[in-house]
Amino acid sequence: MENAPTPARRSRHGGGAARRAERTAVKIETAKYIERNIPNFEILTAEALEIIEANAETVLAEIGVNFVNNPGALKLWRDAGADVDGERVRIPRGLARQLCATAPSSYVQHARNPAKNVVIGGKNLVCAPVYGPPFVRDAAGGRRYAVMEDFRNFVKLGYMSKWLHHSGGTVCEPTDIPVNKRHLDMLHAHMTLSDKPFMGSVTDPSRAQDSVDMCNILFGADFVQDNTVMTSLINVNSPMTFDDVMMGAMEVYARNNQAVILSPFIVGGAMAPVSVAGTLTQVLAEVLAGIAYNQLVRPGAPVIFGAFVTSIDMNSGAPTFGTPEASQILYGAGQLARRMNLPFRSGGALCGSKLPDAQAAYESAHTLNAALLGGVNFMLHACGWLEGGLVSSFEKFVLDADQLGVLHKLAQGVGVEANDQAMDALAEVGPGGHYLGCAHTQANFQSAFWRTEMLDYKPFETWEEDGARDTQALAAQRVSQLLERYQQPALDPGIAEALDRYIADKKASMPDAFT
Amino acid sequence: MENAPTPARRSRHGGGAARRAERTAVKIETAKYIERNIPNFEILTAEALEIIEANAETVLAEIGVNFVNNPGALKLWRDAGADVDGERVRIPRGLARQLCATAPSSYVQHARNPAKNVVIGGKNLVCAPVYGPPFVRDAAGGRRYAVMEDFRNFVKLGYMSKWLHHSGGTVCEPTDIPVNKRHLDMLHAHMTLSDKPFMGSVTDPSRAQDSVDMCNILFGADFVQDNTVMTSLINVNSPMTFDDVMMGAMEVYARNNQAVILSPFIVGGAMAPVSVAGTLTQVLAEVLAGIAYNQLVRPGAPVIFGAFVTSIDMNSGAPTFGTPEASQILYGAGQLARRMNLPFRSGGALCGSKLPDAQAAYESAHTLNAALLGGVNFMLHACGWLEGGLVSSFEKFVLDADQLGVLHKLAQGVGVEANDQAMDALAEVGPGGHYLGCAHTQANFQSAFWRTEMLDYKPFETWEEDGARDTQALAAQRVSQLLERYQQPALDPGIAEALDRYIADKKASMPDAFT
Repeated sequence: MENAPTPARRSRHGGGAARRAERTAVKIETAKYIERNIPNFEILTAEALEIIEANAETVLAEIGVNFVNNPGALKLWRDAGADVDGERVRIPRGLARQLCATAPSSYVQHARNPAKNVVIGGKNLVCAPVYGPPFVRDAAGGRRYAVMEDFRNFVKLGYMSKWLHHSGGTVCEPTDIPVNKRHLDMLHAHMTLSDKPFMGSVTDPSRAQDSVDMCNILFGADFVQDNTVMTSLINVNSPMTFDDVMMGAMEVYARNNQAVILSPFIVGGAMAPVSVAGTLTQVLAEVLAGIAYNQLVRPGAPVIFGAFVTSIDMNSGAPTFGTPEASQILYGAGQLARRMNLPFRSGGALCGSKLPDAQAAYESAHTLNAALLGGVNFMLHACGWLEGGLVSSFEKFVLDADQLGVLHKLAQGVGVEANDQAMDALAEVGPGGHYLGCAHTQANFQSAFWRTEMLDYKPFETWEEDGARDTQALAAQRVSQLLERYQQPALDPGIAEALDRYIADKKASMPDAFT
Repeated sequence: MENAPTPARRSRHGGGAARRAERTAVKIETAKYIERNIPNFEILTAEALEIIEANAETVLAEIGVNFVNNPGALKLWRDAGADVDGERVRIPRGLARQLCATAPSSYVQHARNPAKNVVIGGKNLVCAPVYGPPFVRDAAGGRRYAVMEDFRNFVKLGYMSKWLHHSGGTVCEPTDIPVNKRHLDMLHAHMTLSDKPFMGSVTDPSRAQDSVDMCNILFGADFVQDNTVMTSLINVNSPMTFDDVMMGAMEVYARNNQAVILSPFIVGGAMAPVSVAGTLTQVLAEVLAGIAYNQLVRPGAPVIFGAFVTSIDMNSGAPTFGTPEASQILYGAGQLARRMNLPFRSGGALCGSKLPDAQAAYESAHTLNAALLGGVNFMLHACGWLEGGLVSSFEKFVLDADQLGVLHKLAQGVGVEANDQAMDALAEVGPGGHYLGCAHTQANFQSAFWRTEMLDYKPFETWEEDGARDTQALAAQRVSQLLERYQQPALDPGIAEALDRYIADKKASMPDAFT
């Protein structure tokens, strides 16, 4: 997959303006994606796994799934040996799993800055920001509908965030741009304000095609055909329904060798049974059917086993996040994905809270920990998610992004080389001594401990003199600082111009639509 | 260990006043301690474990540990075969581990209400509240020195907290009571305001003896000699120093068959090497020496492998909590404890934040998750800890206590009985359907999902109309409600009177001391 750059890629930084911009640029550090050196936490026994896998096959064979308004899909399924009855597709035992076997166990998603390419799968964890909220919130302005300016600011924050590997997709919905045109501006922001990998549009097959076309400009058309440059989010309409819009977008991406996350979107108790085992059965059945279909469209296309699962508050009907049931499902789904030898998407800094307060952090931290230990390979919503996904929060974005550093360090595991063993320090200090000044500490303290760029460790008196600020207030300050320091990464002016022209032509070709 | 109750225990609820009190009591639910049905997370490889264990033996044999101002301990060590040089004790390879083998792998700690007995060890997790802070904080009064009234209120909150199994010990330092007398009032509060198990005093051997004497009144002297009714916290003066005060208290408890937690108290980088493997080596060496000594005092006395370990902010020197290094150490220490077949203490809702805000919750949730997955058997500081242990927070107490419910549910694991599999629901609902109304949901929704008593799941508009309160504000309201609803559990008036008399006599026998 690591092809040589195309001419378009080589010339990207070729212009004099680009070179000048690079010389004055603030150095932005991006951590390599997490390469786990720790085991996965496996909550399901071998017996439980076998039961769930057998039940998922029963669901596919006896209940089946619906492919709605999609005659092409029905034909592919019929030709593959499924029993098609109207829009219902019943898949003989074992067929879906067999079709899924052609999907790769991991793939490279290329960024326009090759240093920021990510490998999705294996022991890796790639973190991407919040996706989808129609609202934004910040400490100064409160909660309001998101606009394109917010979107751009989130992309800038993502670019500035060390522990975030991916620029994401719909970091918020820019509601001031017509629905049928906003994907163009969103892609443009990811392509020009950041140099990290990003996601394509899925709200219509034509918009998926626009995403591919714009990538052809950014990366070169030959490069795109041979390499994966987008990972896009295809939600299943759970339970067990694959609608034509999402499937249409997926077909575009698969045909162009671009990756998708095939992701059941489940609020347990509403779109799936109230039990964990039952939900896992449905998740697996949906993923098997969806990925099998993806591979029918193009065998070998990169695809991720997704599981966005949360539970419901049976009093209010509200979706709830960071719950123990959601963690159990995440751990179990990770095991099911690994047994299919597929990359796994789940997790995120998910919460139901209205504010970036203690509730938000408890809930988010539960899911972040589960995602790391549960073997997630691609974590959407890794920062910025608030209020059940209705709100992208500026303060929570930088708070969560800082917490992702905790995951990076934890994932390194425990070294036991001679220097790690520190027997010299133990001998030097001895009973009753103090380690701060010893040689081993002096040689190692700079890299020994994860360091926050966000949390407060000041003595109480200093903290009080500084205004006794809570975490939200500290985060608001960091948001301002990062946006002030932001400098756009260099982009070949010819490419920038071609992108602008593509967007202008597209926008001129159709009337505005706001629904 | 499950002896028949002594006459004193049988008569506890015998009085007419007690019976009347019971009839009008608010029913307080206490969950059974957590019995894990999930695996432990094991971060250390077999090779790493062997290296650390071998290194710990080297530390004991070649560097040794100090038993300060304790000729009796030195004699016991010499008689056991150690090399004693002044106060330095060098322990031949294997000797400490061999001495530790007489300690039980689990034990029952009895509560005065036998329904609230806890089994400490095995796959269990017992949760106890914050221990030690000199300050308290609440939303209304801010941060202030703790007084006995605060202490009593924390004991009441602990009694009312469903997911808290243990009343703890020094839930805050009652600074308005003389240092040499406050242990009497603290024990009295645990014995009379709650019926959950509790901890004894460790600040002086005479106060440990007072704790035993008061338990003799509460449980009956014969019962105490045959059963464990206290689990008390013995910190090691790390690195590798065992002071006479702590060891003196431990000796009292061991001789009386009462349990202690033998716990290195380590801020990594200051009291231990900056590396995880080095810190684990020191923790193991300290625990081996301390527990071996405990077993020299009384073979078979119940004792817990403790590890209170955090790291240091190398910029400010402040201790930090909820860090990835602390989690790695917790996971590793749990493995070391299990290989010694001993109960394990670590974890807690630890944080460095000054307020019960997002920082506090991120940090606490990291450690709560690590404690559950890392096999902790006794979790001190499970709720209420704030500001690096300087502050007991009323709001954080109820917030953390609610979060302990998350751990209870997660620990149950994933059931795969026929009802859990929910195949009837999947068949009934089918593609495109909705699960809320189906038979399986109706039959199971009441117990399907963990329910918070604390967090906010309201729709945004309702939440805004209700005052747009953050988690701290909701917690403040819950603290007030719980304290208003509190009713004292019944206690035999004869026992209550004997406790009062004991305390009055003790207080009259010595002058006040405030240092």
